[in-house]
Amino acid sequence: MSKVAVLGAGSWGTALASVLADNNHDVRLWSHREDQAQEINDHHTNKKYLPDLNLSENIMGYSDMEAAVEDVSAILVVVPTKAIRDVCKQLKHLMTDDQILIHAAKGIEPETHKRISEMMTDELGNERGNKIVVLAGPSHAEEVAKRQPTTVTVSSYDLGQAEAAQDLFMNDRFRVYTNSDLVGVEIGGALKNIIALGAGISDGLGYGDNAKAALITRGLTEIARLGGKMDANPLTFAGLTGVGDLIVTCTSQHSRNWRAGNMLGKGYVLDDVLEQMGMVVEGVRTTKAVYQLSRKISVDMPITQGLYELLFHEKDPKQVVDQLMNRGKTNEMEDLAFILKKTDE
Amino acid sequence: MSKVAVLGAGSWGTALASVLADNNHDVRLWSHREDQAQEINDHHTNKKYLPDLNLSENIMGYSDMEAAVEDVSAILVVVPTKAIRDVCKQLKHLMTDDQILIHAAKGIEPETHKRISEMMTDELGNERGNKIVVLAGPSHAEEVAKRQPTTVTVSSYDLGQAEAAQDLFMNDRFRVYTNSDLVGVEIGGALKNIIALGAGISDGLGYGDNAKAALITRGLTEIARLGGKMDANPLTFAGLTGVGDLIVTCTSQHSRNWRAGNMLGKGYVLDDVLEQMGMVVEGVRTTKAVYQLSRKISVDMPITQGLYELLFHEKDPKQVVDQLMNRGKTNEMEDLAFILKKTDE
Repeated sequence: MSKVAVLGAGSWGTALASVLADNNHDVRLWSHREDQAQEINDHHTNKKYLPDLNLSENIMGYSDMEAAVEDVSAILVVVPTKAIRDVCKQLKHLMTDDQILIHAAKGIEPETHKRISEMMTDELGNERGNKIVVLAGPSHAEEVAKRQPTTVTVSSYDLGQAEAAQDLFMNDRFRVYTNSDLVGVEIGGALKNIIALGAGISDGLGYGDNAKAALITRGLTEIARLGGKMDANPLTFAGLTGVGDLIVTCTSQHSRNWRAGNMLGKGYVLDDVLEQMGMVVEGVRTTKAVYQLSRKISVDMPITQGLYELLFHEKDPKQVVDQLMNRGKTNEMEDLAFILKKTDE
Repeated sequence: MSKVAVLGAGSWGTALASVLADNNHDVRLWSHREDQAQEINDHHTNKKYLPDLNLSENIMGYSDMEAAVEDVSAILVVVPTKAIRDVCKQLKHLMTDDQILIHAAKGIEPETHKRISEMMTDELGNERGNKIVVLAGPSHAEEVAKRQPTTVTVSSYDLGQAEAAQDLFMNDRFRVYTNSDLVGVEIGGALKNIIALGAGISDGLGYGDNAKAALITRGLTEIARLGGKMDANPLTFAGLTGVGDLIVTCTSQHSRNWRAGNMLGKGYVLDDVLEQMGMVVEGVRTTKAVYQLSRKISVDMPITQGLYELLFHEKDPKQVVDQLMNRGKTNEMEDLAFILKKTDE
């Protein structure tokens, strides 16, 4: 079996470390906080992020990144978007060429509007960047930790690297599919958090499942519209990292983006919500980045725009949702036709 | 305002009658049971199907179909699939040419494998049949009755008829889109009930949201695959009557197909489930019809097949779901490529 370093000991990093440990790999779970690494080694727990999980003895905590990545065959990066560049700056001098590099982060960088793998490539160089693998899909960390059946997708420009990542993670409770559309997989993973905020707001306002399903469906359309413009394959959005991940993030109370939206729908202001959550809510930053991006490249994204106005200009949640429900358009295929156009090219 | 007859006083027929009444139409709500028509007139309630709803005084109960449809400008048929032909046989001699004919039923006929509008056309003739409008979309009757925000789609070979139906129903809580793909809209509406049974079974087995999202995503793929073969536009399945309706039916405990599946997952046998439900569970009959159809026209539908074996050959639910999770295929785009092929034609 292999040695694998997991950089980032939040809930998703810890859950993925457990999958790797189940597959008998020696896992080094790195945290920038020494007390967290210590807790992992002393108590085999990570109480803040996955309170009910007993970690395998195959998982060792590290707070020294150099020691964590030395001599491993694969490195998995699972840190918040805003920490990606910093982690990669350190990794650049520590990695060797034969190590598989995977990320399971979700976001779009504000200002640059870059995807995670683009940010990583900036820091690590093109040669390394072209071999990056992304792992995404409908997967609450809490359920993966409990070994409930889960499917995810891995994607890379380098199919061999994606298949190597597939081999590391695949087991009978954790199914891993490959997909060659790296751009679509990253966009779906990042943008679903925007729609999850919206779904939470709709629920917080007391609207029902009908309204939420409409929001998710229209959300999928605008994600695919942006993706198409960025040279993603529109079909990716019909798969696990599109529809699948949207469903799981928008309809489950496990989702912290949904929970943040729910509080906003109930009338809390953003600062209070973020303080109460105590964890990163990627959807908030992603909404801003994607709103700016959509303006720059002229893609119509009414849900993202409505949420941007709500989050950053204190627009009333009810007004935002009602406006989305009452738009003028009355032929749904006009909206979807861009996909047809795209696939015809 | 118009006079409209609604044939079928189950939960969906009653909810749609309420939307029409909100729009100030005079609604005649027909039931084959005289006591139900009487309850509507005497108490303005329909306790069996929507216990919490007080019906508008614009809604009158009828048990005489001739009286119900006389002189109305539109007729909405909302009866179980197995009653469609019988209702249309009666309608044939009662309808006039200028009446708009809409159906909001969901199913595929066993043996013939026909869609609802095809069954209706058999009975009413082609001229009448080509003007039929279908109404479908993500819509729990309970929420529509409470005037919670809802979006639906209407479709017809005759766009003018679809637009007339849109005008009848549209209001600020009930958004109606048009879509020209009648076949896709009917298939999505019918087949989602199969996947809802599956989602209920997964939940009944105690599997989590990750598993259910995977099932819904793979379910969408197999629905689109069958639809493509039957000349539906694959894009319709990315819209309200595809993804949207799947989400609402598979993730909400309002759905009776989900509830039936949930009981199956907990170990009840089919006969007991159907008895306890006390209402039609369309998904059961649809599973059989679609399984047979998929064999006849050679479309791979593993979820439908698994559920068929579970429902009609007492296969163990856990075995069915585990088999679906553990299929050999590991590249998700191979499955989706048929859509690309289809839209390239």
